[in-house]
Amino acid sequence: MKDKLKFFIEHKYTNNFILAVIVYNAIALGLLTYPSICNYIGTFLLHSCFACVIIFTIEMIIKLYVYGGKFFKDGWNNFDFILVAMSWVPTGGVFSSFRAFRVLRALRALRLVTRMQKLRLIVQAIIDSIPNVFWACLLLLLIFYIFAIMGTTLYAESYPEYFGTIGKTMATLFQMVTLDDWAAGIARPICAKNPFGWIYFITFILISSFIVMNVIVGVIVNAIGEIGEKSKLMRERKNIKDRSTLERELSKLRRQISKVELILQASKDDIE
Amino acid sequence: MKDKLKFFIEHKYTNNFILAVIVYNAIALGLLTYPSICNYIGTFLLHSCFACVIIFTIEMIIKLYVYGGKFFKDGWNNFDFILVAMSWVPTGGVFSSFRAFRVLRALRALRLVTRMQKLRLIVQAIIDSIPNVFWACLLLLLIFYIFAIMGTTLYAESYPEYFGTIGKTMATLFQMVTLDDWAAGIARPICAKNPFGWIYFITFILISSFIVMNVIVGVIVNAIGEIGEKSKLMRERKNIKDRSTLERELSKLRRQISKVELILQASKDDIE
Amino acid sequence: MKDKLKFFIEHKYTNNFILAVIVYNAIALGLLTYPSICNYIGTFLLHSCFACVIIFTIEMIIKLYVYGGKFFKDGWNNFDFILVAMSWVPTGGVFSSFRAFRVLRALRALRLVTRMQKLRLIVQAIIDSIPNVFWACLLLLLIFYIFAIMGTTLYAESYPEYFGTIGKTMATLFQMVTLDDWAAGIARPICAKNPFGWIYFITFILISSFIVMNVIVGVIVNAIGEIGEKSKLMRERKNIKDRSTLERELSKLRRQISKVELILQASKDDIE
Amino acid sequence: MKDKLKFFIEHKYTNNFILAVIVYNAIALGLLTYPSICNYIGTFLLHSCFACVIIFTIEMIIKLYVYGGKFFKDGWNNFDFILVAMSWVPTGGVFSSFRAFRVLRALRALRLVTRMQKLRLIVQAIIDSIPNVFWACLLLLLIFYIFAIMGTTLYAESYPEYFGTIGKTMATLFQMVTLDDWAAGIARPICAKNPFGWIYFITFILISSFIVMNVIVGVIVNAIGEIGEKSKLMRERKNIKDRSTLERELSKLRRQISKVELILQASKDDIE
Repeated sequence: MKDKLKFFIEHKYTNNFILAVIVYNAIALGLLTYPSICNYIGTFLLHSCFACVIIFTIEMIIKLYVYGGKFFKDGWNNFDFILVAMSWVPTGGVFSSFRAFRVLRALRALRLVTRMQKLRLIVQAIIDSIPNVFWACLLLLLIFYIFAIMGTTLYAESYPEYFGTIGKTMATLFQMVTLDDWAAGIARPICAKNPFGWIYFITFILISSFIVMNVIVGVIVNAIGEIGEKSKLMRERKNIKDRSTLERELSKLRRQISKVELILQASKDDIE
Repeated sequence: MKDKLKFFIEHKYTNNFILAVIVYNAIALGLLTYPSICNYIGTFLLHSCFACVIIFTIEMIIKLYVYGGKFFKDGWNNFDFILVAMSWVPTGGVFSSFRAFRVLRALRALRLVTRMQKLRLIVQAIIDSIPNVFWACLLLLLIFYIFAIMGTTLYAESYPEYFGTIGKTMATLFQMVTLDDWAAGIARPICAKNPFGWIYFITFILISSFIVMNVIVGVIVNAIGEIGEKSKLMRERKNIKDRSTLERELSKLRRQISKVELILQASKDDIE
Repeated sequence: MKDKLKFFIEHKYTNNFILAVIVYNAIALGLLTYPSICNYIGTFLLHSCFACVIIFTIEMIIKLYVYGGKFFKDGWNNFDFILVAMSWVPTGGVFSSFRAFRVLRALRALRLVTRMQKLRLIVQAIIDSIPNVFWACLLLLLIFYIFAIMGTTLYAESYPEYFGTIGKTMATLFQMVTLDDWAAGIARPICAKNPFGWIYFITFILISSFIVMNVIVGVIVNAIGEIGEKSKLMRERKNIKDRSTLERELSKLRRQISKVELILQASKDDIE
Repeated sequence: MKDKLKFFIEHKYTNNFILAVIVYNAIALGLLTYPSICNYIGTFLLHSCFACVIIFTIEMIIKLYVYGGKFFKDGWNNFDFILVAMSWVPTGGVFSSFRAFRVLRALRALRLVTRMQKLRLIVQAIIDSIPNVFWACLLLLLIFYIFAIMGTTLYAESYPEYFGTIGKTMATLFQMVTLDDWAAGIARPICAKNPFGWIYFITFILISSFIVMNVIVGVIVNAIGEIGEKSKLMRERKNIKDRSTLERELSKLRRQISKVELILQASKDDIE
């Protein structure tokens, strides 16, 4: 029974069917956002989406039964499981006012990433690059926090919209890191009254840009270092092979000369 | 006849003439956008542009006759053919209201790319880098779609201009990827009412920036990997040459020693 | 006594305690920016912050006593010392109107950088990359100054807000380097009256972008050069080892042949 | 006389004096932009600036006399000469209305670049990287021109401010390449009426970003290729040295064996 189910769940056709269901689900969720379409086939779309969830759940249950505890050892399986489990968070009834829950349905389309090898590799590469930039991001966060305290202390009273609380100031600083409207919208109105404000804004822009640049350079250098590492390994393996050929040649030479020596020794003994 | 035409069409002078016609056509199309110039020499410009199209068509026909089916095996020839064919899409008469058709005339200037080796190389390099970034772009598209569904569900009613439909939300998200006015124009008015909106916007900015950065890093690493590959090949060829010199030396040595051995053996035999 | 204090100050528990005090201080300073929280526990927070400063000062004094003059030989210690010393700049009483002084308290959170190895490494890397970009920044500053003189001369009268003085023009040019609202907010209103203004703005954008790009490329190339340097060193060490193995083999061969020669010489002498 | 002048003009003190004059001139030109300062010492500053020009001119004349025709063989000398010559373009009298001429005085500060080795190297590096990006820039220009014709044809009537003429459209497209306010300020108002406009804008943003990215990647790869080239050369030189050591060893071996052979031959002859 288990073997049959395993064969069934790992079969190419089953996989393609699930893939098709994921794509259909994504399209249906997209169509559901058009009120005019909802009026016509809204009920059908909602029901078919629910059918998709049921199919996903059955797939999950079979996989859990077939693989048992091993299922959760793969990060992607966990990711898949959470996405499917989240589908059962109630969105209707008393919860219907929490639109945020309904919004999470769209995340189900992320199951495509689990299903397509190439996308998995890219996501894996991005996730793998996080440890390399983790500390730089922590440093950036520290700088954010320090400038947030400063900004809130300085401008909270006069500009509550941008610097009202630590949270608002953090959002403003994030906007400044993306360089969006930082001067025209934020710095200029403030610095028109207090020219020393430029010190705060320009210092923050320079420091945060430098750290962000450092993060990007780090990612580039890491990626290059990796291919360099690979090519170095290959070169070394090649070198070792070459080297051993040479050494084999040399040892053959030595054996020949040893033979010459022996013959000479023998002939010398003979003479003596 | 065919050989003569081939000689004619591949002749340096013909090529330079066609190049001049392309440049003239581009300039004429530019001049046609100035109403004041159109009043004076508009008819002349239009007629000369038509003459250019006829010259291009004759060139195309000769090439098709000379090269036959082989003509379409080169991607650039296909590109050229489409550009010339598009010139014959009717723009006057009943079609004159479709300004979009008339706009496509400007694309004829792209024939310059086909004609200049250096530009072809750059375009080729850009096209060649597409497969490397294709999957990252697909991932970006998936993220776009998911955030588009979320955004439309959340904000369609309150902000129809930015999040009215999936299409409008996609355009808004594209604007956010370019970091243009995302905070001041889009996120702030929305988050002023609902502070949790920052989660949506900042998450999207971070994820999309990470993927875009990944694409750029990928292109850089690929380009570097290619020159690395080339220099590795050259180094290896050099190594193999060096290696063979050494091995030739060693085999000469061995032959010498063999000779010594033979002489010794002979002398030993003599003595015995 | 000195040894005991040294043991105490270098102990893991002491370090962790100081780390906790730094983090608490940072959080407390953050909470102090919320007026509603200040009303409840503001006095407590202020007093506890003062307690933190006293703890930091005692730590500093012990370190100064234990390490003496050596303390100031490490740049990070100097940095720490300045941060702690700055805490004693009076902020209350007659100075309470200088909000800027109070703002500097937030910098104490930077002590975290000194305490965490990983953050120190990143900051060190950023500081180390400054000499490489110093001259490019100087060039950028020169370009800034030249364009500031030009801009002020040209637009000071008509647009005093953006180009009123050299300082204001410098701030405007910095805004232009970050590409924020340069066209819509600054260049368009000016160039609507004087189309030649585009020469000034586009030239500046192109030149400054080129120099900034040069700086970034320089940082990337440097970082890659460094890993290249490291891997080259390792490769060379490996090569030298390989080489010496080969040479040892060859010298063994020579010694063998020398022995053969000696034997031959001897046998020849014998015969003679 | 010539030798004395050469000694004088190449003397360290003369160079430092000229450097000081350049710096003073730059500062004076900066001070001249402040009306309040002009009221006090404006006349003095203007006269001293004129004195600077005379000093520069005398320096130029001496250099021309000393070096003769060779002077113009160095690009930097030409650059210097043009800057000094430009100082004599009349700015007062009937020309006083041409403020643009007066603005060019600020360029004299660029002589600093000629005088400081490090700045020269950076400028040289930037100029050297131009040929590598020349064709990509030409391609970008072609794309600009094509989109400018299209944009002007489509939007000249409705949005004359942004797309009135080819020139205005080019400026708008340049603004779009820098991603400044492209969506909020330009694309949205147009696309609100004609949703197909997004095709024009998004296509342009994507194509131009790709080409600009290509240019930047090209510059990075080139810079890395150059250090790679250098380290390869060094490695090869090292390899050749190593190789020759090995070969010398081998030839010594061969000579030894030849001697053995000779001795053997001799002893064999003796016996016979």
